[in-house]
Amino acid sequence: MRLPWQIVFIITLNFKGLLTTPSLEEYMSYRVNVLSQELNMSYGQGLELTWEEELFNGVLMILKDVEMAQSFQTSEFPPAFSFLETWRDYDSSEVFQLLKTIPKGAILHIHDITMTSVDWLIQNATYIANLYYKEEEEAVEFRFLPSGTQGWSSLQERRETDGNGQVDSWLKQVLMMGTDSEKYQTVNECWVKFMRCLNAALGIITYKPVFVEYFDRALEEYLLDGVQYVELRSTLPPVYDLDGSSLTQLECALLYKDTADKFAARNPDWCGSKLIFAPIRHVPESTVVTDLEVAKVLQAELPEFFAGFDLVAQEDKGFPLVDFVEPLLEASEYMTYFFHAGETDWDWSSTDLNLADAILLNTSRIGHGYAIDKHPVLMEIGREKDIAIEVNPISNQVLGLVSDLRNHPAATLVKTSYPIVISSDDPSVWGSLPLSHDFYAAFMAFGGDSADLRMLKQLVMNSFRYSKMGLEERNVCLAKFENRWRRVIRENLYDSPDIGIV
Amino acid sequence: MRLPWQIVFIITLNFKGLLTTPSLEEYMSYRVNVLSQELNMSYGQGLELTWEEELFNGVLMILKDVEMAQSFQTSEFPPAFSFLETWRDYDSSEVFQLLKTIPKGAILHIHDITMTSVDWLIQNATYIANLYYKEEEEAVEFRFLPSGTQGWSSLQERRETDGNGQVDSWLKQVLMMGTDSEKYQTVNECWVKFMRCLNAALGIITYKPVFVEYFDRALEEYLLDGVQYVELRSTLPPVYDLDGSSLTQLECALLYKDTADKFAARNPDWCGSKLIFAPIRHVPESTVVTDLEVAKVLQAELPEFFAGFDLVAQEDKGFPLVDFVEPLLEASEYMTYFFHAGETDWDWSSTDLNLADAILLNTSRIGHGYAIDKHPVLMEIGREKDIAIEVNPISNQVLGLVSDLRNHPAATLVKTSYPIVISSDDPSVWGSLPLSHDFYAAFMAFGGDSADLRMLKQLVMNSFRYSKMGLEERNVCLAKFENRWRRVIRENLYDSPDIGIV
Repeated sequence: MRLPWQIVFIITLNFKGLLTTPSLEEYMSYRVNVLSQELNMSYGQGLELTWEEELFNGVLMILKDVEMAQSFQTSEFPPAFSFLETWRDYDSSEVFQLLKTIPKGAILHIHDITMTSVDWLIQNATYIANLYYKEEEEAVEFRFLPSGTQGWSSLQERRETDGNGQVDSWLKQVLMMGTDSEKYQTVNECWVKFMRCLNAALGIITYKPVFVEYFDRALEEYLLDGVQYVELRSTLPPVYDLDGSSLTQLECALLYKDTADKFAARNPDWCGSKLIFAPIRHVPESTVVTDLEVAKVLQAELPEFFAGFDLVAQEDKGFPLVDFVEPLLEASEYMTYFFHAGETDWDWSSTDLNLADAILLNTSRIGHGYAIDKHPVLMEIGREKDIAIEVNPISNQVLGLVSDLRNHPAATLVKTSYPIVISSDDPSVWGSLPLSHDFYAAFMAFGGDSADLRMLKQLVMNSFRYSKMGLEERNVCLAKFENRWRRVIRENLYDSPDIGIV
Repeated sequence: MRLPWQIVFIITLNFKGLLTTPSLEEYMSYRVNVLSQELNMSYGQGLELTWEEELFNGVLMILKDVEMAQSFQTSEFPPAFSFLETWRDYDSSEVFQLLKTIPKGAILHIHDITMTSVDWLIQNATYIANLYYKEEEEAVEFRFLPSGTQGWSSLQERRETDGNGQVDSWLKQVLMMGTDSEKYQTVNECWVKFMRCLNAALGIITYKPVFVEYFDRALEEYLLDGVQYVELRSTLPPVYDLDGSSLTQLECALLYKDTADKFAARNPDWCGSKLIFAPIRHVPESTVVTDLEVAKVLQAELPEFFAGFDLVAQEDKGFPLVDFVEPLLEASEYMTYFFHAGETDWDWSSTDLNLADAILLNTSRIGHGYAIDKHPVLMEIGREKDIAIEVNPISNQVLGLVSDLRNHPAATLVKTSYPIVISSDDPSVWGSLPLSHDFYAAFMAFGGDSADLRMLKQLVMNSFRYSKMGLEERNVCLAKFENRWRRVIRENLYDSPDIGIV
């Protein structure tokens, strides 16, 4: 790709060459020239479409133009307001319904205990006997126990007293943000509720019999949503059993691999899964040293399945990467990093400067990287090193970084084809689909009026390109994708009663 | 200034030169190097401060650091939420109180009928006899009339019935956004209320005896807020008298000039005023042709006072510049433009593409230019041509383009020292001071943790540099500014009971 400054140099030279006022024709031809240069730099513009893709793109863009024109008139635009309030509007969009059908590539930024829909979790895990809970003000904890214990109440008994309907809807409120009328104003308020959701889910999901089913179901939901590959982040939590025993981190990773392998064997369309070990960042340096040792073991034991290392939890409240730079630098000789960095609005805060350390520590991708557009030097180093930003549009919105997604920095990044991938972070907490809602948000809010199927295809291609698949693995996966993509495009063109135009 | 890509090229070369993992020392020195490069590119970093300015900067930054640290902890930050809700938090900030005292240069983007505080208008214009009003649902119109007429009610009579307190607070609700608990969700809803405020104000302000006082009071308020020069945009409305006569546009401009001259004569600190003729854009091309003829007359008759031409009103609803490109191109041979462009979140909409036409028509500055960061090519042409963006932070927030001002594109523009000036657009409608609130928002939200007095001084310098003052005029003005600046810095250092540290 040619760099902006080179193009600009040429255009301004041309324009300045004209010393008198241009004629109307000259003016309009400059105008077209400048705007074409802009368009050519934006996402996916380099991709060629097949004639079938062109047809499909035609349908897609008719639907999109209608929706954009309506929104422009009314100034009502679903991605402009919190997903917690507008998800119904996403669902009633025809563009969204169409995007749901298409293959979307890989999910590269997702956390393991927020992968699967809460409805599934409630229906399949909370009806199991032996589930107990503890309420402290608004925080709720769950645990499977062999029998009642002091301080823990039986959920089964509550079901008998209150009825399943009432208990299920209470569980939904506990496990999700905003299913009631709660409002989270500041980033901290968002995170308090968000952490409560995670803590509540943790005790249910890490019960061993649930754990395996939960992950298997996640992959099933992903495949259904058009995803074919995943790199999940996990703290590798102590998966426990009724007898009080719990798995080590290596055993937990092995269980993930085993479940992933079985799923792949059953589903020929599926390309595979990998694991990023992502322990909590709110810890002393010595813990990070231990975590890196665990990561080294995982790398040795699970060379194909293990992808690398990250540190997680609310960045603004945790320790910055620079506090751990000594062990991280040392381990960087053999370890691949996928650091969360710059998930913040606070310019030049410690969170913000995590971007510098992530990039200088040669991170493979950046988790969120929300603040990258305020760092012109880091941005260009990142582009040079080809470090993709894992953008999670709805997560950033729900967790308070931005209201109108058209103001998300990624809306600027796509204009110069900066490497990004779209992901969903913690979809279960806000009830979005694995990738479709985020794809729609990116297409409409980042892409604006001009982005078409090529932007979507470029995002898919990026998701494979910036994954940690090996060369051969990737080729096999690309073939599976191409196959599915062609099939879906054709189905949409020829078979769909609603949008079939051919 | 060195361009980003040049710097980046050097840094990446250096960093890439190192083939092995760097030592901790090497790493930390790269880190400092990269971050310094970033800092050096940002606003005002090229300015040298005197030792007194350094002292003052020390005080300023202590106060700022405390406020930023508190906000970082609590995630409560006034510029992150609508000014209509947080203006009290601005007022209780010590940084804000300090910024209020310093000279702020020129206001280059302001509309004539929203220049002066509503409190002044209510107290000084609505107690005059003969003021009548007409209410239609939520829209209120005012008009001074010789006597009662069908359809118009006397405000004086209402005062007698309801009492002054109640009438004054009703007037405030009519003339301002959000003095009650109203919420404006979408851009359109904001503009409906905003236009109602303007229409209500128009009938009061354009009564000739009020008109002169209103403008004179505006200049007084500006001077008090540390402003020394203004370029106001006006539609040159039909200023009327009780006998039914009204001024022509030229007469209106002459009245402005006369008032401005008298004010300047009385206030030696004041540098002057100029006029931008800015008629409504919701018109056929023939009207634009006529408007340009008026502009030509103004230019001939008031060569010093008249600055140039613009087109105004909600861009999304008006005709784009490209519709008028033929007459605009023709007039560009002799006319200076100050186009509103890109005051929108709608990427590649007609409003958005106004940016292309503004720049290609050689606009002198861009009003708002909110969408510029989504146009890398236009952005670089704009930089090359040295076209400043007139940024109105609080206006953009209140009128619905962005919630958290840290997501405003200007927060990115200041990182590469893109030419901007800070202005306030329509301060009376949301009750902000002429420039202090917007300066505070820019300093805290665009500048982040790192920006200091040099950013503020750079903004002041820009406001003079991008004004339409002639060379000599500018030199005189700079001297007045320097004088005032030095005086205020000293007063703050030596005399202030609160912040005097020396």
